Formats: sequence, structure tokens, C-alpha cells
Amino acid sequence: MASTQTELSKTAGKPIHCRAAVARKPGEPLVIEEVIVAPPKAREVRLKIICTSLCHSDVTFWKLKEFPGCFPRIFGHEAFGVVESVGEDVRDLNEGDSVVPIFLPDCTDCLDCTSKKSNNCSKFQFKVSPWMLRDDTSRFTTIDGETLYHFLFISSFSEYTVVDIANVTKIDPCVPPNRACLFSCGVSTGVGAALKTANVEPGSTVVIFGLGAIGLAVAEGARICGATRIIGVDINSDKLEIGRQFGVTDFVNSNSYEDKPISQVINEMTNGGADYCFECVGLGTLVQEAYACCRKGWGKTIVLGVDKPGAELTFKSFDVLHSGKTLMGSLFGGLKPKSDIPLLVKCYLDKVLQLDKFVTHEVSFQDINKAFDLLVQGKSVRCVIWMDK
Amino acid sequence: MASTQTELSKTAGKPIHCRAAVARKPGEPLVIEEVIVAPPKAREVRLKIICTSLCHSDVTFWKLKEFPGCFPRIFGHEAFGVVESVGEDVRDLNEGDSVVPIFLPDCTDCLDCTSKKSNNCSKFQFKVSPWMLRDDTSRFTTIDGETLYHFLFISSFSEYTVVDIANVTKIDPCVPPNRACLFSCGVSTGVGAALKTANVEPGSTVVIFGLGAIGLAVAEGARICGATRIIGVDINSDKLEIGRQFGVTDFVNSNSYEDKPISQVINEMTNGGADYCFECVGLGTLVQEAYACCRKGWGKTIVLGVDKPGAELTFKSFDVLHSGKTLMGSLFGGLKPKSDIPLLVKCYLDKVLQLDKFVTHEVSFQDINKAFDLLVQGKSVRCVIWMDK
Repeated sequence: MASTQTELSKTAGKPIHCRAAVARKPGEPLVIEEVIVAPPKAREVRLKIICTSLCHSDVTFWKLKEFPGCFPRIFGHEAFGVVESVGEDVRDLNEGDSVVPIFLPDCTDCLDCTSKKSNNCSKFQFKVSPWMLRDDTSRFTTIDGETLYHFLFISSFSEYTVVDIANVTKIDPCVPPNRACLFSCGVSTGVGAALKTANVEPGSTVVIFGLGAIGLAVAEGARICGATRIIGVDINSDKLEIGRQFGVTDFVNSNSYEDKPISQVINEMTNGGADYCFECVGLGTLVQEAYACCRKGWGKTIVLGVDKPGAELTFKSFDVLHSGKTLMGSLFGGLKPKSDIPLLVKCYLDKVLQLDKFVTHEVSFQDINKAFDLLVQGKSVRCVIWMDK
Repeated sequence: MASTQTELSKTAGKPIHCRAAVARKPGEPLVIEEVIVAPPKAREVRLKIICTSLCHSDVTFWKLKEFPGCFPRIFGHEAFGVVESVGEDVRDLNEGDSVVPIFLPDCTDCLDCTSKKSNNCSKFQFKVSPWMLRDDTSRFTTIDGETLYHFLFISSFSEYTVVDIANVTKIDPCVPPNRACLFSCGVSTGVGAALKTANVEPGSTVVIFGLGAIGLAVAEGARICGATRIIGVDINSDKLEIGRQFGVTDFVNSNSYEDKPISQVINEMTNGGADYCFECVGLGTLVQEAYACCRKGWGKTIVLGVDKPGAELTFKSFDVLHSGKTLMGSLFGGLKPKSDIPLLVKCYLDKVLQLDKFVTHEVSFQDINKAFDLLVQGKSVRCVIWMDK
């Protein structure tokens, strides 16, 4: 799949003309256009994207009419690619390397990146920037010279893209591209939240609010950890069947209980609450429900869902003090991109982590808008988009 | 100090007439009265209180004009005593045993009490009840037959009191009474919050909001854990000196910074936040400040302060998701009364845990209102009240 180093280096140092799917207006279909991708600057690499997959965050920001929504923009942040060329001061990456770009920076040398406890790089704070990580500029222009915005430091809906070395993790080339791209964001986030943030104990009861890709990945992580009861909560009953495939043992349609809060339903089902509650939707009220049905004494509530900007979470002070419960956020599943992703990849290669079932659809690049339709309609978990097809 | 078994058993099974300090109206001085203490019922013991100490919770509920404030009531919940007699079905306690009563029930056989992870007894949920734990009745009457309310299942401002076996922990009689009583509540809560709830790592930076007895006990716990920087925050500059005695390395008077939030002051002092922030005041806004200045990536905010009923805590959803911070409550320092208190007592006997400095005042029972004055005026950390003096 990967081109040879000799082939790749022919384009090194030069702008590359290639196809990209450009989002020109909020919520409107992407347009495949010819774009120019500048060579990588210092501590950047240019990637040839082999395949990319569509994540909910792409859709959320694609719909956003106001800042941090901005257009024209190249979305996409889950991908597998090969290093086409490297900028100055790039030591650990070479042309031809198989990589996954990851939105969460990992500089490898700040206090956070050298600590086992944090995945929150303090040199490059995570933000939803429309630019490159290091110098707040773009590497994309149209053939008319119009600047195109980046997304989450990745912009993988392009045959070539430039990313900072802090946003790249090398990956074993044995992993098929349409599985490798899953490590970039959603699946890693969910699996990591169960394995690393929550550190789910064998025999536990887990509740997952929202059975999208992240929620299902939490289920996969909880299954790996040995959870014996995995309760999925969603408003879409179609999730019952897909949930089962990911080890969800009980399904609750939260729309079926208008007379009582869902936390009460869960408390009754679990005789006092679940050991771990994961909120994967991004609704403050649902985080409160999750907190209300995680078990007194030791329950953990893990927030994964991205709420709208400025949203707040409110808890009763008495409950926080007296319950013995813990509230945690889980950005990228608590995983450190460069050191933890190889461990997850090993889990996959050892057939412990099951990735195949996440890929429900595959389309060619020219059909990228179908991937959006499928996700918006709740029909896909992950739709892989192949760049060369 | 303890009477012999023969002496004690003379009163077994009979009501005891003795002195108690009765709170008749909210905020008004206690009145030493003759009261009648009924014999213990099944799974209860009657204690001869040797000494008791005054905790902020006593003062809070003594001032409370509405429910859960109720009068006439016998306050007091930090104490050292000797078992005078036991009711039916009491196996592990005998007349003459040295004990500390503890407000937090520990039934020793429910799912929580048998789990290492919880101190939140599910058989007897903690509540601020005006009655005995098991049957919601009182063991106290006046000589005119008036019923007196209990407080926190203990009511130690009486020469004798009846407590449930779930509220009693045996203690090594080597511990002097005026040190033993400190294990009942405040000191254990603060030390436990640092040692058990937060599990403070050596070399850490700790911020403590509120340098009352609990806050100072957090400092003592953090010192034992090897914290290298302990920042105390209070509005009373007198706490600077007392804080130093407890290992507080930096003092911040939060009233000195009107132009910026205290979280910003701490973030600047610590170059990005403290590893652990303990809120020991009971103010929602202060919990938010604590959360805002615990370090991104791994910071823990531990809530110890008791806010007013119905109070809420609000956080930015984005901060919770993206910060990698943890929010935890710490009821009784996360300690399990019957199994963890003996470990703290060992720390004291091994001269690791320093208790002497907590006792700033000692008074005789008849001067109990002086203890209230000292605490309300912020002059005492712990004032020990001796029953036989």
C-alpha cells in the first residue's frame, strides 16, 4: 500500500496539487476540489492519506454556523497515512513511515508529556484551531490562492495533508489501513476511557449513555476489562442490535420512561447504581443522570461527550460531598498518543481488541458525502473513506 | 481513667441520671441539666463519656433555626468514652472497653462495609438525624419527662450517652482521652482526605481552602504523605501562624486579592495549578475556585466542606471534559471507621501523626459554652471538654 521512499521523495519540498473535500458552507455537502498542499515547515510532516474515517466531531463542526465553525475548511481527523516528506528538525519520522495523525498534541518533552499521569500536553494546549499547531497558519490553498482552514490540526479529507510531529503517531504497518485509521480518535477514546481513565474492574457493572462509536468503543473496552454487565442507554432502538455485537448486555431506550428519570431506572436495574457511568452524548443533563446512577461509595462518572460551548454541569453539593463518587473527564480516553496507541495496536494485533465490527461502511473518496449522510442518520458506526478509490 | 467492669455494671440495665449540656434554643448558650439516659437497646451500648471536643458541625446545627435544626438537643459527636453497659446482641464490645463514637455508621456486613472501596454503609445511610440510628427514637429525657433530641447518632455533651454498635470504634487505651476524642471526626476527616481519598503523592503541591481543624488536619495528612508545598488559603490572617505549625509552607489571604480570583493567584504561584486542592469551607464558589486551580492533566479537587442544604456546584462542561481533572467528595476522609481508625491510631502511637497541636484549649464540662465562644471566634482549633472536671 505504502509507496517507496524513492517515489515519495520526488515531491519533497514542493507544493502538491491534489484532491480535497472542501466544506464551503455549514451543513452543505463537501465539494471535491483541486487544492495545493504546501511542503511541511520545521517539525512538520506531509502525509499521503490512504484512508480516513468520519467522526461525529467532523459533523458537529461542519454544521456550526459561528466560530469555532469557519469556512472554507478541510475536515477529517481520523486517518491512516504514509509520510510523504518531512520538514526540518524532524528526527523520529521518515518518508514512507506508516502513521496515524492524532488531534491531541503529544510533544514528548513537556512536564505533562513526560508524566504518566497526564495526556494534556502543556506545550501545545489542545484547542479547536482552524490552523496548524505551531504557527497558526494554513498549508492549504485553492488553485485561486484562497486559504483553506484546517480542522483539529489534521484535515485528512485531502489526498495530502500537513501535520505537526506532535500530532503524529507511528503505527505498525501490519495493521490494515481501514483499521489503523480507527486509532486516530473515536475508538481509542472509548476504549481508553474504559481501560485507562476509569480502569474498569473485572466483574463490574457499566452504563453507557449514547451508543455511537465512542459509546460502543467504551463497551468494547469494558468487555476487555471483564465487566460482566454493560447497560447501553440510547433513544434509538436500532442501537439494541449493534450494541449486542459490542457486548452490551442490557439495552434501555430512555424515551420509554417518561414518568421517571433514567437514573432511577438504572438504579432499580442495578440495585443502587452502576460501578461506572460513561456519558458519550454531550448533554449536561445526561451527565447529571449518569452521576445520579453511579454507585454510592465508589461509582465513577466519566464524561466523554462534547457539549455545546459554554454549557455547564451542575451537581448538588451534598451529593458530591457525601456520595463517595468520582467525576472525571476523559479527553482522548486519557491516552497518551505516542506511548499508549502502540499498546492498543498490540491489543488489536493480539486479537484482544476487536476493530472489524466498528467499520460498518466503506466508500470511495468521491462519495464522501454518503459517509456524512450515514452518520447523520445514525446508520453507520464508522464509515471508512478510501482516498484512492 | 476507665472504671473497672464491676463498678460499671452496677448501673447496667437501669436508667442513669447524669449531667448533660442541653441546647434549648438555636444559638443560645447550652444549659447543664440533669437528664435521664435510658439503658441501651439491642445492638446499642451506653458510654460513659470521659472527654469530648467541639467540632464546627456542632456549631452549625446549634445555630440552625429550621429543620434539620431541632431543639432541645444534646450536641457533641467527637468524644472518647468507656462502655458502661451493652444491650442485647452486642458481641464485639464489652463493659470497660475504651471507644470513640463515630457519626458515620459502619455495620461491618453490608456490601459497602465489606468493600475496601467504600465507607458509605448501605445498611444505615448517613443522615443528620435527631434520633438513634436503628429505631428513630431518643434515649434521653429530662427529669420532667421531656424528650431530648440526639445529634449525629452520638450526643456526647452528656456524661452518659447511648450509641449504636455501628457508631462505635474500639481504641487502644494507651491513647490519652484528650487525644483519642480527636479521632471521632474532624482530624480523621482531614488526615483521611489526604491519605486515603486523595492519596497525596510525595513531592506534591497541595492547596487547602480554609484552615480550620479539618483544613489543618489535611495539612498534617499532606505532610505525612510527603507533600513539599502546602498552600493554605483563609480570610483570617491569624491562620498564618497556626498553619505554619501544621506544615503549611505558603499562606494566602484571599481577601487580599480583590482584583483577581484566588484560583488565578494559585495558578500563578504554582505555575499552572496544584496537584491537589481541598475545599474545607463549604462554599460552592470556593469549590469552583479549587477546581480551577488544580492542575490540568492530573489535578484532584476534594470536597470536604459542608455547604448549606440544597446548595449546588457548577462547572464548565468543557473544563470537566478537557482538563483531565478529578472531582471527589470526602465524607469522613474516605475512612472506614472500624478498620481505618485503628491504622490512624497506630500512626499516632508511632509518632508519625502529630495530634498534640490540634488541642489548643481544654475546659471543664461546666465551661462548655467557652468552647463554643472560642470556636466561633476562630481562636481554637480543638477545645477538649473534660466531663469530670
